[in-house]
Amino acid sequence: MSFMARRRALDTLPEPMPDLVPRLTTAAATKIVLVRVDGLGGVRTDALGSERHAAATPNLDRLAREGSSGLHTVVAPGVTAGSGAGHLAVFGYDPLVYELGRGELSAAGVGFPLKPGDVAARVNFCTLDANGVIADRRAGRISTEVNIGLTERLRDIRLPGVEVLVEPVKEHRFVLVLRGAGLGGRLSETDPQTLGTPPLPVRALEPSSERTADLVNRFVAEARQRLTDAAPANMVLLRGFDQLPALPRFPEIFGLRAAAIAAYPMYRGLAKLVGMEVLKTGSGFADEVATLRQHWEGYDYFFVHYKDTDKAGEDGDFDAKVSALERFDAFVPEIRALGPDVIVVSGDHASPSVLASHGWQPVPVLLWSRYCGADPVKAFSERACAAGTLGVMPAQHLMPLVMANALRLTKYGA
Amino acid sequence: MSFMARRRALDTLPEPMPDLVPRLTTAAATKIVLVRVDGLGGVRTDALGSERHAAATPNLDRLAREGSSGLHTVVAPGVTAGSGAGHLAVFGYDPLVYELGRGELSAAGVGFPLKPGDVAARVNFCTLDANGVIADRRAGRISTEVNIGLTERLRDIRLPGVEVLVEPVKEHRFVLVLRGAGLGGRLSETDPQTLGTPPLPVRALEPSSERTADLVNRFVAEARQRLTDAAPANMVLLRGFDQLPALPRFPEIFGLRAAAIAAYPMYRGLAKLVGMEVLKTGSGFADEVATLRQHWEGYDYFFVHYKDTDKAGEDGDFDAKVSALERFDAFVPEIRALGPDVIVVSGDHASPSVLASHGWQPVPVLLWSRYCGADPVKAFSERACAAGTLGVMPAQHLMPLVMANALRLTKYGA
Repeated sequence: MSFMARRRALDTLPEPMPDLVPRLTTAAATKIVLVRVDGLGGVRTDALGSERHAAATPNLDRLAREGSSGLHTVVAPGVTAGSGAGHLAVFGYDPLVYELGRGELSAAGVGFPLKPGDVAARVNFCTLDANGVIADRRAGRISTEVNIGLTERLRDIRLPGVEVLVEPVKEHRFVLVLRGAGLGGRLSETDPQTLGTPPLPVRALEPSSERTADLVNRFVAEARQRLTDAAPANMVLLRGFDQLPALPRFPEIFGLRAAAIAAYPMYRGLAKLVGMEVLKTGSGFADEVATLRQHWEGYDYFFVHYKDTDKAGEDGDFDAKVSALERFDAFVPEIRALGPDVIVVSGDHASPSVLASHGWQPVPVLLWSRYCGADPVKAFSERACAAGTLGVMPAQHLMPLVMANALRLTKYGA
Repeated sequence: MSFMARRRALDTLPEPMPDLVPRLTTAAATKIVLVRVDGLGGVRTDALGSERHAAATPNLDRLAREGSSGLHTVVAPGVTAGSGAGHLAVFGYDPLVYELGRGELSAAGVGFPLKPGDVAARVNFCTLDANGVIADRRAGRISTEVNIGLTERLRDIRLPGVEVLVEPVKEHRFVLVLRGAGLGGRLSETDPQTLGTPPLPVRALEPSSERTADLVNRFVAEARQRLTDAAPANMVLLRGFDQLPALPRFPEIFGLRAAAIAAYPMYRGLAKLVGMEVLKTGSGFADEVATLRQHWEGYDYFFVHYKDTDKAGEDGDFDAKVSALERFDAFVPEIRALGPDVIVVSGDHASPSVLASHGWQPVPVLLWSRYCGADPVKAFSERACAAGTLGVMPAQHLMPLVMANALRLTKYGA
């Protein structure tokens, strides 16, 4: 028996989704609220403990006292998750099985409705000099208004057998999406990452992407012609090609009418990728909670995104993160007042202020329901959660637990 | 592709290495010290608790207070690890994927530099009587000096297409290694394990080992001729055939200049198998720490082996194990004074004195760095470590965590 065959025979921590869960899903009238506190995890920076310990969060602590707690890893132990991987994991998808690339994330970030099989790339406008070599990789960071005008010129480029979709982002950046049958996303980048050389042609990194490479090169040639008079934005550089995998649809896997409430476009985009309905909301968390209340009757599952913690963590601002946690805590009673059957508070990845970036540290998670079981945890902090009955678990195991607590999974086996 | 097929194709959650980690590895100037306290784990035997609880280890307790802790299993829950499996696991290799056999361990134990594809066997000199049947399976336990003289006679046996390598061990034992292309290690043993019968011929247990079986039988025939006058050591018995798998090289997988410091040859041999540089050191742990200090600038990662705990555990000597732990503890400040960025203290397997052998019990592990995260653990003991943020984890997940804490892994996903 080969090593890998042996390992597989033993592989006894199977992924419960999407093979097992849909088989066990059953109907119920229960309501689930999952709040993603972005970048929730912190680490001890000084005598104060982590941000979680420094923050006064009486409402979260009460939920922890009444519920069960633990820590979850996101991708794998020691591996820091990007936002796409972090969100997919907490939605129940193994991020090593369903990988999202930069092109897809950029598209999600502008709320672009990607479909499975779409090939997406991040594109910069750039400047070529009279000799055709790159003089500025960002075209002098043209304004978003200029960008919108120029992408308008590219929008009706036609390529044989595929749809060409162009969507402006900010300043010099836009997203290119090719849609059609038989595309491949394994493509080299055109940005040589240096000045004074011409852009590179796109090459296929595997045979199934050869036709797509050819199409992208045609797009670039046509874009160059249409931008001749548009200096400093007279050319494009393409990076981060990816093809959207066929993601099982969240509402079907879990049998839930699922809604996403997020002020930031990126998180709305990620929710849309897995088939959730994205609800219109305002720009702050108070708006999100109002949206939750307004749509309470219409859905079974609400994904609610809280951004401020991640921003403070990424800025390396300990005090701001503490304050963001405390502001979030104050909204908890309003959410409880709606009468959810299951409340989950977790994060998509750690953003410890001591790192001023995403971190690999396991993230506190709290699951509250009538049925979640006894637990010694009395406060919602990393240190306290380590002793919880959820243990240290992969984030993608959370959704089956949520479903069980919502009495939405039947028994396995007789 | 079905979900399970994809899961198997990636098969990365049980083992983030070697697929995922090399993809994420990045350069840094950080230094890592991993101390393997051999046979660290004990079990509670009475009111004293385990050896770990009875020992006074203020320096380890301080590391545990400042760092994160947990317990790790080695092969799988309930499975007792041999030294080879235990070491591979803590080096980041799944011991179920990379299996080391007894022949290989014996070769490593005498510091023999095995190469992938080598077939190794443990050999005993034995005594045949006038009828050609075994009279003594250990040749009266001849002295090591006699052994060295006799293996000298066998060293220049020549076989077609392979190198024959012979290395004395202790008393009546030596190691035989065949090196060359196309060998196979699936061979039956020649030791019938009883007296009064002749040695068995070697048989191939699968077709790809047939040529090797033939070569080994030729070696045995030739050895018998050369030993005719050497009674009581007038024949050889071969056991524990194995072929060294192609082990990914540790320095390349992790992008680390890796050094091993171990007084015992077995552990130097294991480190050499995975490609670490083995540093010359003395016979005690004080020598090892001096070697660490001397080579501090030259490497990124140091594996330092502490043996006394295992020896005491295997002897069933509770007090000796307590004392060995306390002696180790006294060296911790010297190691810290070197200024490592990451310190790990763990074991390769439990050796509870109540068992007087290796045990399956999970082993305490402690990971200290600036970024390791908050943790309630205040002492380095099995009982305290159970509440740590590392949880109960497979040992092979440790290296990715170490790499993350050394800021040597980039983010996964956009």
